[in-house]
Amino acid sequence: MTLHTPRLNPPIRTLMGPGPSDIHPRVLSAIGRSTVGHLDPYYLELMDHLQSMLRGLFRTENRMTMAISATGSAGMEATVVNLIEPGDPMLVCVNGVFGMRMADVAGRAGAEVTTVERPWGEVFSPEDLKDALAAAKPKVVGIVMAETSTGAWQPLEEISELVHDAGALLLVDAVTSLGGVAVEVDRWNIDAIYSGSQKCLSCPPGLAPVSFNERALEVIRSRRTKVQSWYLDVSMLANYWGSDRVYHHTAPINMSYALYEAVQILHEEGLDAAFARHWQNHLALKAGLAALGIEYTAQEGHQLPMLNAVSVPAGVDDARLRSDLLNRFGIEIGGGLGAFKGKVWRIGLMGYGSRAANVLLFLGALEQLLAEHGHAFEHGAGIAAANASYQASRSKPD
Amino acid sequence: MTLHTPRLNPPIRTLMGPGPSDIHPRVLSAIGRSTVGHLDPYYLELMDHLQSMLRGLFRTENRMTMAISATGSAGMEATVVNLIEPGDPMLVCVNGVFGMRMADVAGRAGAEVTTVERPWGEVFSPEDLKDALAAAKPKVVGIVMAETSTGAWQPLEEISELVHDAGALLLVDAVTSLGGVAVEVDRWNIDAIYSGSQKCLSCPPGLAPVSFNERALEVIRSRRTKVQSWYLDVSMLANYWGSDRVYHHTAPINMSYALYEAVQILHEEGLDAAFARHWQNHLALKAGLAALGIEYTAQEGHQLPMLNAVSVPAGVDDARLRSDLLNRFGIEIGGGLGAFKGKVWRIGLMGYGSRAANVLLFLGALEQLLAEHGHAFEHGAGIAAANASYQASRSKPD
Repeated sequence: MTLHTPRLNPPIRTLMGPGPSDIHPRVLSAIGRSTVGHLDPYYLELMDHLQSMLRGLFRTENRMTMAISATGSAGMEATVVNLIEPGDPMLVCVNGVFGMRMADVAGRAGAEVTTVERPWGEVFSPEDLKDALAAAKPKVVGIVMAETSTGAWQPLEEISELVHDAGALLLVDAVTSLGGVAVEVDRWNIDAIYSGSQKCLSCPPGLAPVSFNERALEVIRSRRTKVQSWYLDVSMLANYWGSDRVYHHTAPINMSYALYEAVQILHEEGLDAAFARHWQNHLALKAGLAALGIEYTAQEGHQLPMLNAVSVPAGVDDARLRSDLLNRFGIEIGGGLGAFKGKVWRIGLMGYGSRAANVLLFLGALEQLLAEHGHAFEHGAGIAAANASYQASRSKPD
Repeated sequence: MTLHTPRLNPPIRTLMGPGPSDIHPRVLSAIGRSTVGHLDPYYLELMDHLQSMLRGLFRTENRMTMAISATGSAGMEATVVNLIEPGDPMLVCVNGVFGMRMADVAGRAGAEVTTVERPWGEVFSPEDLKDALAAAKPKVVGIVMAETSTGAWQPLEEISELVHDAGALLLVDAVTSLGGVAVEVDRWNIDAIYSGSQKCLSCPPGLAPVSFNERALEVIRSRRTKVQSWYLDVSMLANYWGSDRVYHHTAPINMSYALYEAVQILHEEGLDAAFARHWQNHLALKAGLAALGIEYTAQEGHQLPMLNAVSVPAGVDDARLRSDLLNRFGIEIGGGLGAFKGKVWRIGLMGYGSRAANVLLFLGALEQLLAEHGHAFEHGAGIAAANASYQASRSKPD
């Protein structure tokens, strides 16, 4: 069998979709460092440091904080299958694709799933959960903090209180939020949480940071049945990530290098500074888009800074515009998922990708393409509004 | 929270353990190439080429040949959970750690597991399976082709015939074998198979090539229940790897670059040439070890070329010697697992790591350390025997 395949030669993109995000050059350099074994003393030490940096990121003291050796969706599955046993009631909040996914994952784990729903783009108030909590008496309540399909930013503090008053565990999807806005695992009393490497951490996809608090671990310790997934069994993983260092599976060494570097970059900047940066670039993008007559999908006051979901302007061909953005300017943005297919653009300003240069590049390219699509706006209005937003934020006292 | 963590600075190792293996420099360069999106036209095209190269590697025409976005053990889990529904009988052949693991994974998937066992280091003959096949009437028979814990090389052709005569599907673990010895999926009628990126493919750990034939897909299509793992659901993955390109999870882009490059290197060399190289280096290592009085664990005639499991010589401190190998020479070999802990060394000659330079380096370092441990042998005997083996193979007509 002769195989003729082209040499690897990926194009250079500006990644402004829902993830993967732009990767910091230091991270692309880290991922190619020389591979060591998964039981090498150097690697074991690296895991310790990585764990402490991940704890910092999640703002938690949770011992059981680590990276699952797969992408963010496996983080979702890992948290669900460890907490749920067949027949356990679970309540899942659904206001977009990722809440739907969590309900599917929970059902496959044998949970008796109840969902509460809100329209796409809206968030849940504690009031929305009250009846379902009383009726379902769930063991676990799952909720998405940053719904990547709609750009909605879910507040968690009051809901956490309500969930715990009802005797349930709170499971949070922080795939898109972690590193871009504050995720306060201890202060908000989150029992289990998962994220992904490829959003605001600006690391290639392939790892899923997770954290479990003592209450969640106690639930796992008192399971009557084995966790259905061997690969994601937290008790076994704990023996490798903990001081015992019992071999479980061969860790993805080079992905860990990348995550290590990515999280270190974030800590060097400081989390609060990174959050402020995400917010500032979001405001500038939003001002620019508003000047072009483009509106956000998520409800006002609950719009994520790192995932800007907006309505495709009337008369504009979604697929053609995104394809032109990619092919002529090298810019990737995301289309809509599910109910939002063809109607929504998802513009990511995540991690290293959240910078003024990307905001201006995108607005400039968008203006050119919108003009070609016959969309009416005042030329230069987007860039002008974004720059005005940057200037306003600079003239504010810190 | 201030975090002081050292800059990433992995040591340079010669990886001669059970994997990860030495990574080819081209692969370390590939993994750091610029990240593109998982729906980027370039990436979709790359997936097509990767699939065709993986088919070549497995020697199969199977349409459903792809890489699972996690390490080899997740490949095991993916094949099992897609084929098994709760209550299905499965027969697992156990003669080492990885057969045990498969039985555990199958049990967690709800299979009624029957095991047949052979002593560690031995392989199964068709005769060993006959009674169990008749009694258990399994839907699936699982067997490990290259038992990484013992170094035993399991022949599959006759067993495959027997398994199919009994109406079962054959599921094969090719984690350590793929790329180092012939794995003939179509010719041997293997229904489902999985491997890992970090053995004879010389790619960092993190991806698991898998393949399912039409008979296996038919079983999956006629399932009464959902696959218990959302992340590993082959029907959903097929919609992304197939022509529909439906988003499932965010693919590990940079790991895919690495696997692409690694498999391309292997095809450039040619599979048969790679197998011959693995065999030649194995013979040289074996000759060298024999001259030092060191014996193989697996039964004669069934010793894997890429995973040389040998008995730790009497009087030698296993942990100290391996630690000295690592710290003084930068060489990693593996210790024993399970029943073989403290008693066995596992010396990998995998992929790019299977080369004369590694054989000689290892034997030279081992001689020095064995002398310090008071082990009796004729100085230089290991290197001399290995070199004689190389010379003998070179003087043979091709």
